[in-house]
Amino acid sequence: MEVKKVLLPESEIPRQWYNILPDMPTPLEPPLHPATGKPVGPEDLEPIFPMNLIEQEVSQERYIDIPEEVLEKYLLWRPTPLYRARALEEYLQTPARIYFKNEGVSPPGSHKPNTALAQAYYNKVAGTKRITTETGAGQWGSALSFCCALFGLECKVFMVKVSYNQKPYRRIMMQTWGANCIPSPSTETEAGRKILEQDPDSPGSLGIAISEAVEAAVSDKDTKYSLGSVLNHVLLHQTINGLETQKQMAMIGEYPDVIIGCAGGGSNFAGLALPFVRDKINGKEIEIIAVEPTSCPTMTRGPFAYDFGDTVQMTPLLPMHTLGHSFVPAPIHAGGLRYHGMAPIVSQLVLDGIIRPEAIPQLETFRAGITFARTEGFISAPETDHAIAMVIREAIKAKEEGKEKVILFNWSGHGLVDMAAYEAYLSGKLKDHDLPEEEIERALKDIAILPKPKQAQG
Amino acid sequence: MEVKKVLLPESEIPRQWYNILPDMPTPLEPPLHPATGKPVGPEDLEPIFPMNLIEQEVSQERYIDIPEEVLEKYLLWRPTPLYRARALEEYLQTPARIYFKNEGVSPPGSHKPNTALAQAYYNKVAGTKRITTETGAGQWGSALSFCCALFGLECKVFMVKVSYNQKPYRRIMMQTWGANCIPSPSTETEAGRKILEQDPDSPGSLGIAISEAVEAAVSDKDTKYSLGSVLNHVLLHQTINGLETQKQMAMIGEYPDVIIGCAGGGSNFAGLALPFVRDKINGKEIEIIAVEPTSCPTMTRGPFAYDFGDTVQMTPLLPMHTLGHSFVPAPIHAGGLRYHGMAPIVSQLVLDGIIRPEAIPQLETFRAGITFARTEGFISAPETDHAIAMVIREAIKAKEEGKEKVILFNWSGHGLVDMAAYEAYLSGKLKDHDLPEEEIERALKDIAILPKPKQAQG
Repeated sequence: MEVKKVLLPESEIPRQWYNILPDMPTPLEPPLHPATGKPVGPEDLEPIFPMNLIEQEVSQERYIDIPEEVLEKYLLWRPTPLYRARALEEYLQTPARIYFKNEGVSPPGSHKPNTALAQAYYNKVAGTKRITTETGAGQWGSALSFCCALFGLECKVFMVKVSYNQKPYRRIMMQTWGANCIPSPSTETEAGRKILEQDPDSPGSLGIAISEAVEAAVSDKDTKYSLGSVLNHVLLHQTINGLETQKQMAMIGEYPDVIIGCAGGGSNFAGLALPFVRDKINGKEIEIIAVEPTSCPTMTRGPFAYDFGDTVQMTPLLPMHTLGHSFVPAPIHAGGLRYHGMAPIVSQLVLDGIIRPEAIPQLETFRAGITFARTEGFISAPETDHAIAMVIREAIKAKEEGKEKVILFNWSGHGLVDMAAYEAYLSGKLKDHDLPEEEIERALKDIAILPKPKQAQG
Repeated sequence: MEVKKVLLPESEIPRQWYNILPDMPTPLEPPLHPATGKPVGPEDLEPIFPMNLIEQEVSQERYIDIPEEVLEKYLLWRPTPLYRARALEEYLQTPARIYFKNEGVSPPGSHKPNTALAQAYYNKVAGTKRITTETGAGQWGSALSFCCALFGLECKVFMVKVSYNQKPYRRIMMQTWGANCIPSPSTETEAGRKILEQDPDSPGSLGIAISEAVEAAVSDKDTKYSLGSVLNHVLLHQTINGLETQKQMAMIGEYPDVIIGCAGGGSNFAGLALPFVRDKINGKEIEIIAVEPTSCPTMTRGPFAYDFGDTVQMTPLLPMHTLGHSFVPAPIHAGGLRYHGMAPIVSQLVLDGIIRPEAIPQLETFRAGITFARTEGFISAPETDHAIAMVIREAIKAKEEGKEKVILFNWSGHGLVDMAAYEAYLSGKLKDHDLPEEEIERALKDIAILPKPKQAQG
């Protein structure tokens, strides 16, 4: 009987996260203050984040110890199993060996708690009583609610109102874990009240929800704000996944030729990829592919520039691939990939040619998800279907080339709370969304600082 | 760092199921043909089930080999992890050590595929092209759909119409796995058409859905019917869970003093308990507790008698605890526990004093589920919450008695597709359902053969 899952013993769980900052071929440019155009200092961020996380955000230490209390709670679902996708291989008749890391075994069903747990812990240690955040479809909000419950912190989630009403499952998950989940715009903040005054029936947006969550944090000294992707410390926490995978691949004497992950803000992709990026920088030959939707082609069609992280222009300016902060992606079902920007670390590595970005249209991703469900059994989140679609492309390519490649991808979460998306696909209601050049050009005009910062020139 | 999960290596997965029939202290009485009152023979069942499963149903072999093809696909999610619930212990301040077996890691999220996989395999081998079944809330239907996909069989699920419309998630899961899910009553069967003629707006019932599924099976030679609980071979397949758990407990030098599972038809409970029941028969001191809802108190208030397995009186008469086949339980959210009967094996062991039945009211079970979610992190299926409520009772008892007991329970599935139930609880809309004696007496009048069969006399 051949091995299906590679299990890493709990005693072998990585004790440190990997920080890629000191290894970046091109050093990361700092975030800028939008008013002054000067680099943002720790004190600018202090009203929003606790100091221990701000320090992590800029740390140049290559390895950062995972606190014992975080490790202990990681064990609730980590180390996660590494799977060999034999049934998919057979179905595709590919000589490639396909492996996937199953991040869907966490209680909320995705990779998000890898950082939510760490952020809840560091906030607890810093004396924070309450964490605020925003959420769209709810994957991040539910992960943070879960982790706040484990550390006895209050959690307040501003959930985009239209999702709050239309997608109740993750909202109820948050409430089950004891979080206070509020439809945004709300009357709890100045920002929310202002919107409601103008439009009492506003369906809300991620931009508005961010404003509310940040305002709620800065207006109370015991409250901090938390972000689920994009930032350096978020990607740092996610590297536990790639570090585990390296050990698991070594256990079976394999090493990936191709690594694939879907990328919205970039954190699940980076979590698997960054430890291998280090190997690549040190000379290993690996193709590392970040997959985005063709309807939100941040890396494949957006320039590298300084732009706001949010649509309401409250955040510092980040050096990243961006479609412009006013870009509104088509309503695809992979809500986690509908983001105008991309993590600065991932963006820089794309710019440096280390990561290859690819864009895939919606219908192909659902087709891939169905194929995966009917061969490997697991129903994937619509975001994850983007990675699977790319895996299928690469496996077919390996077949055409007659190459025995090892393909590794991040199965970032299950889709059991996203079944409405599958229903829409199965009943023929979904379509691909063309994105005309004019539309992109219009959005790009809103990018905060153009031309591109200096690294982009080379 | 203390161990959180006990992982059994894939190479250690049990290679045989455990069949308790030869070890039963009181031999099981045979099912009876309702027309003749005589024991049902294999030929009576042949139009419904394939012969290899009929043989398993009556086998007296103590151990039955698990086919290689089934083992291989079990590895998709098995062996499942055994967890220590330290956070719950601390919250309850109990000296008890609490362990739970996590059956929620399977692709559909419950224990049901343990038998669905085996049944799909045996049908495939027997030349069946299509399997029919019925489903209420959809846990069983989704598990069978998943397993039929893995073995390339067609699957037709008759889903109670009111659930089909109100609980779309598991229905879409079935469709994603390629099953044909039909709202029942349907126009596809004589039984369905007859009901629709009388009542075009019929919301359906599990009884009607069973009739449709069985009719669809017997009227086509390539089609067989499949049942998700109650029968001996179903319980047999579920024992892989208890056998794994015995190995895992041995790995850490523990042995349970108390074993707990929720029981609707009895299969998840029996899957964990039966290998330990054997130990108990051989002299070990273990308390083995089957938990049911107070609103459907089959074991605690129903007699042991011969009764139909279904409400429409199509099945053979089974010797079991029953509330009468016409009993309609209150609409509690633990749909899987709303069954008037109980597996004959479990029923006989209750009668023999080896299994202790307990009934718990709905609100206490949800309270327990919330406590579990906020300590251990996992959101449980409402059925599973019954087991958790009993665990909490026993852990508090251990504290009062100052005893260091080892409590083991079956965490039979996650509740991520049951969030509506949690919402109803959290918003105060749920209540307990008193069940007056008169109501039970009325239902008991419909039991097929009373007085009780002879074993019940002793």
